[in-house]
Amino acid sequence: MRRAVLSAAVELLSREGLAGATVAAVARAAGVHETSVYRRWRTRENLILDALTSELDSALPIPDTGRVREDLLAFFDRLARLLGTPQGHALLRLSVERDDTLDDRRGPYWRDRLDRAVVMVRRGVERGELAPGTDPGLLVEAVSGPLFVRALLSRAPLDEALVTGLVDLALDGARPGRPAGT
Amino acid sequence: MRRAVLSAAVELLSREGLAGATVAAVARAAGVHETSVYRRWRTRENLILDALTSELDSALPIPDTGRVREDLLAFFDRLARLLGTPQGHALLRLSVERDDTLDDRRGPYWRDRLDRAVVMVRRGVERGELAPGTDPGLLVEAVSGPLFVRALLSRAPLDEALVTGLVDLALDGARPGRPAGT
Repeated sequence: MRRAVLSAAVELLSREGLAGATVAAVARAAGVHETSVYRRWRTRENLILDALTSELDSALPIPDTGRVREDLLAFFDRLARLLGTPQGHALLRLSVERDDTLDDRRGPYWRDRLDRAVVMVRRGVERGELAPGTDPGLLVEAVSGPLFVRALLSRAPLDEALVTGLVDLALDGARPGRPAGT
Repeated sequence: MRRAVLSAAVELLSREGLAGATVAAVARAAGVHETSVYRRWRTRENLILDALTSELDSALPIPDTGRVREDLLAFFDRLARLLGTPQGHALLRLSVERDDTLDDRRGPYWRDRLDRAVVMVRRGVERGELAPGTDPGLLVEAVSGPLFVRALLSRAPLDEALVTGLVDLALDGARPGRPAGT
């Protein structure tokens, strides 16, 4: 029942936005009683956050190839593709829409998802691929930030060349004398 | 008259959002006739975009110190401070809110503003401070993206340490062996 309700919620959120994802509509789409949904999730807010979390977490596994550049390219390629899908875009838009019932918990939501990605950078520091003073959260922000901005603001394309350019810039910098992508 | 109307529009946009910035309200706040506003700007959309443009362009001059790191720190410190003000935040929120009368022109608006910043990177390449293959737009996105995301999504602080960290990461990269901030 949990999977059916959550996938109905994601489906409705993606297609109709926050306004369309009422508990009644989700219950109807999932073929369960509204009271069962309330019994399990208590509020619409809990249901929506649970749906977003399970959706994005399964779409964004953390790779572990043994090389920091490969890990970052794989992870951020997936993030870019996710933000480029109608569903991913709807989930992102939902995060910036004003809604008094959700406001407090949506900021931490995205922060938590990106916090999971810092482990790739930490492993790179431990293996000596990255400088000991590297700030893992800052590196994750420097690569993910432009992807979110393209999806939300500029509507510029989210492609593999963009992700490769951002990862190599964060690893190698723009100063002369070091070959990129090594 | 132009300055009075534009500053009344920015004031109203910041305080009450898109819905409050009607031509009638702007005209009243500026102490001019509504017909004079329509004569000059023709549509509410033109008025709002003109107000945003003049506000942000005067708040974001492009520095030219002769050193790329100094230029980037000065520019992005200003952008971070601007996004952290209630007014700057309102202008940014406005850019991601759904509004059928504005949708087409707001994406290019932000892209245009950041396009002006690439000249700092180009000068750094010309002076040999940056590698010849540097992508100026990508570097501007890597530094500005996390600032926009913090303002819109994560609500994490926009401080000088963040800007310095992002600029130095984009210039020097995270690989070992090159001192940051030089």
